[in-house]
Amino acid sequence: MATQAAFAVRFPQLARPGRGHGQGQPARVGVAVRGGRAAARGVRCRAGGLIEPDGGRLVELVAPEEGGRRAALRREAAALPHRVRLGRVDTEWLHVLSEGWASPLRGFMRETEFLQALHFNAVRGADGTLVNMSVPIVLALDDAQRRAIQADGATAVALVDAHDRPVAVLSDIEIYKHNKEERIARTWGTTARGLPYVEEAITNAGDWLIGGDLEVIEPIKYNDGLDQYRLSPSQLREEFARRNADAVFAFQLRNPVHNGHALLMTDTRRRLLEMGYKNPVLLLHPLGGFTKADDVPLSVRMKQHEKVLEEGVLNPESTVVAIFPSPMHYAGPTEVQWHAKARINAGANFYIVGRDPAGMGHPTEKRDLYDADHGKKVLSMAPGLERLNILPFKVAAYDTKHNKMNFFDPSRKEDFLFISGTKMRSLAKNRESPPDGFMCPGGWKVLVEYYDSLAPPEGSSKLREAVAA
Amino acid sequence: MATQAAFAVRFPQLARPGRGHGQGQPARVGVAVRGGRAAARGVRCRAGGLIEPDGGRLVELVAPEEGGRRAALRREAAALPHRVRLGRVDTEWLHVLSEGWASPLRGFMRETEFLQALHFNAVRGADGTLVNMSVPIVLALDDAQRRAIQADGATAVALVDAHDRPVAVLSDIEIYKHNKEERIARTWGTTARGLPYVEEAITNAGDWLIGGDLEVIEPIKYNDGLDQYRLSPSQLREEFARRNADAVFAFQLRNPVHNGHALLMTDTRRRLLEMGYKNPVLLLHPLGGFTKADDVPLSVRMKQHEKVLEEGVLNPESTVVAIFPSPMHYAGPTEVQWHAKARINAGANFYIVGRDPAGMGHPTEKRDLYDADHGKKVLSMAPGLERLNILPFKVAAYDTKHNKMNFFDPSRKEDFLFISGTKMRSLAKNRESPPDGFMCPGGWKVLVEYYDSLAPPEGSSKLREAVAA
Repeated sequence: MATQAAFAVRFPQLARPGRGHGQGQPARVGVAVRGGRAAARGVRCRAGGLIEPDGGRLVELVAPEEGGRRAALRREAAALPHRVRLGRVDTEWLHVLSEGWASPLRGFMRETEFLQALHFNAVRGADGTLVNMSVPIVLALDDAQRRAIQADGATAVALVDAHDRPVAVLSDIEIYKHNKEERIARTWGTTARGLPYVEEAITNAGDWLIGGDLEVIEPIKYNDGLDQYRLSPSQLREEFARRNADAVFAFQLRNPVHNGHALLMTDTRRRLLEMGYKNPVLLLHPLGGFTKADDVPLSVRMKQHEKVLEEGVLNPESTVVAIFPSPMHYAGPTEVQWHAKARINAGANFYIVGRDPAGMGHPTEKRDLYDADHGKKVLSMAPGLERLNILPFKVAAYDTKHNKMNFFDPSRKEDFLFISGTKMRSLAKNRESPPDGFMCPGGWKVLVEYYDSLAPPEGSSKLREAVAA
Repeated sequence: MATQAAFAVRFPQLARPGRGHGQGQPARVGVAVRGGRAAARGVRCRAGGLIEPDGGRLVELVAPEEGGRRAALRREAAALPHRVRLGRVDTEWLHVLSEGWASPLRGFMRETEFLQALHFNAVRGADGTLVNMSVPIVLALDDAQRRAIQADGATAVALVDAHDRPVAVLSDIEIYKHNKEERIARTWGTTARGLPYVEEAITNAGDWLIGGDLEVIEPIKYNDGLDQYRLSPSQLREEFARRNADAVFAFQLRNPVHNGHALLMTDTRRRLLEMGYKNPVLLLHPLGGFTKADDVPLSVRMKQHEKVLEEGVLNPESTVVAIFPSPMHYAGPTEVQWHAKARINAGANFYIVGRDPAGMGHPTEKRDLYDADHGKKVLSMAPGLERLNILPFKVAAYDTKHNKMNFFDPSRKEDFLFISGTKMRSLAKNRESPPDGFMCPGGWKVLVEYYDSLAPPEGSSKLREAVAA
């Protein structure tokens, strides 16, 4: 059977060394050799127990390897007179679309999808049901390109990479206005200057958007040594099925994993077992696309996550580590819906949501951009996410009485120390140690080494500690 | 039976004089004496053929006249230690809520409703279904009030008018943050200064919102000579039933009616008859709440609408003229959903939508704030409005070949003259006549007289013509 094609996705079952000090050989977590994806194209996941993708089936848009379609599509693309060059973020969205994270979308949004995303955070499928879709997945075009394409009456364009090599064809195209102000206001709830995604991907983008049906020539690769972590929703579903998961709980993050996160994930598994699930599997799913400049880079985070599994802070047998290829919007309650929805498509039926998900400081005012509770509230009410179980985050903090991360106990709040991401980064930058038990030593070392590599030349003063407002 | 209580709603069946020049006695259109509303409280409309209100029943929040509830509520309100004073726009929303235009809302929004309105333009009812709700209906509170209420642990507040007289009680209250920037950005798709509703009702409002269950002491009256036009959804439903309407088509407007509007409404009725309806009734439903300074005031518009019926431009037998008590947001595609949704609650199952509904010029840029087609598109896709039939507006313009308003025919576009609202106001201001057949003479006279009453003293130059960008 097609779905039994040889997926060489393997997660070595690491031995679980003693907590915190494992010195075993470097772990290979989530190593996956891509291949045979065409075999799974359009086929329902064989894991009957997993949640269905939005729209009933995964929409995969990479041309099948066999049958000569890739070569034919490459020729088609090369022959198209109009080419749209993809920037970094565009390519990340192409990747997202090609693997079905945004199912049932079949390409960059046309105007009806764009408007529904902006106004309703949901789009209506062919059968009339609403699926969640809170961030616009769009491709911009400048005015000269628009005029040239429309003058020709072209119905398809080639999408090309930075070296002008075709990577996909967008057909049955529709070109419509890119009202940036309205897009930004409705997505972020602010138009203040300094929103990282806006500066990276909107401010200098064209004033038109082009939507259409996407067909991608071959799987997107980054050749950065991390492609083995980039499992598609279909590959993740295969992996969950292979492990006989009867519940999959997803944890989105874009920061190093500390023991508070680990406690939360471990505790979630415990709760799911109590609820009667036999084998809940954690999808530890760091975001791999665009992040703001002061976030820890993906390669460092992946190295840190490896240590966390290697040192036994999380149990590799019930954990799948993979990269979520989406870029980051930092759009709080709007974006957390996207983070959750995409994980449904990858087979997750539980989603852990914390304080201020996808939030950040207001770019121009001394306050957080979003109310810390809005993400959780909006997520729990979002249209199209009714099938997903939302697991609100319990707050963990450093328990100075027990010298470990622990769930915050308001009855003895004086015992707890909150260590923010900003504080954590500042400690690592300054080569200071966090309290014992805050993070596994190997993971912390990865961070310190990263900040060392950025360190200013000898003699310059210590980095000043940035404290969150 | 309760629903057969004597509603003294009467629309005199005007004779239909010759088109445009009827000189009969002044028409009394839509005269309704309010009373007996309590009888209809919470009762499903007896008109089996009318569309159901959102949530299945009209939520009416005025205390019943009989049984002493009004007096008791007045005493309750007087005894409450905390009073929130209602501004003009607040009172308009109180009116809207009290009559069930926003059914199934039972009062000013609590935070979950507010967040759903902002993010999804829809709120989930008790049974899990989505009802449309695109604009926040909220009541602001300043910080001192919030602190006082919360210090007391109060669970209810009295809502009072400008003279400190209690008009309602808000109970089981919830106080939450009023993030104005986010509210504005998500509602208008811009945060540019100069949005009329924002300046009127948000900029100087408090930084907190208070939601809760509303009970209003008695029906809201304005004592401006127009209360007889202010029919509640329940009264409108009674009227449609009385007329044996088998389809109700609503036309929202905030401008004088010209013959292009009339053509459209007449043509809509013709189309509905062709579709097999036996007695389609038009709800001509001018907005009566807050409008921006350069819009024609309500009293003048009502006088103009009277003339339109009196002079037979619209058929009084199949037309109900009433005032929609909502304030105007000028929030384009977001607001048009509210305009449509509220009319479902009044019994309309067809809604006419035109070019750029609820739109205006961008307050700081030389362009329209919204794409002219977005309103129609967003409305047709909006969650919770699936039951409503959207009738897109055909564009009417002045046909110079036939000297009348006609549907625009692109094959002879040179024959057509577009007369914008701005142009119309400027002609009336300058006492110039529009082309013959643009508006019935009586209606035009009302406008000229209005602008005369505003005219600068003798000797000053003509008003300059403002031309829309």
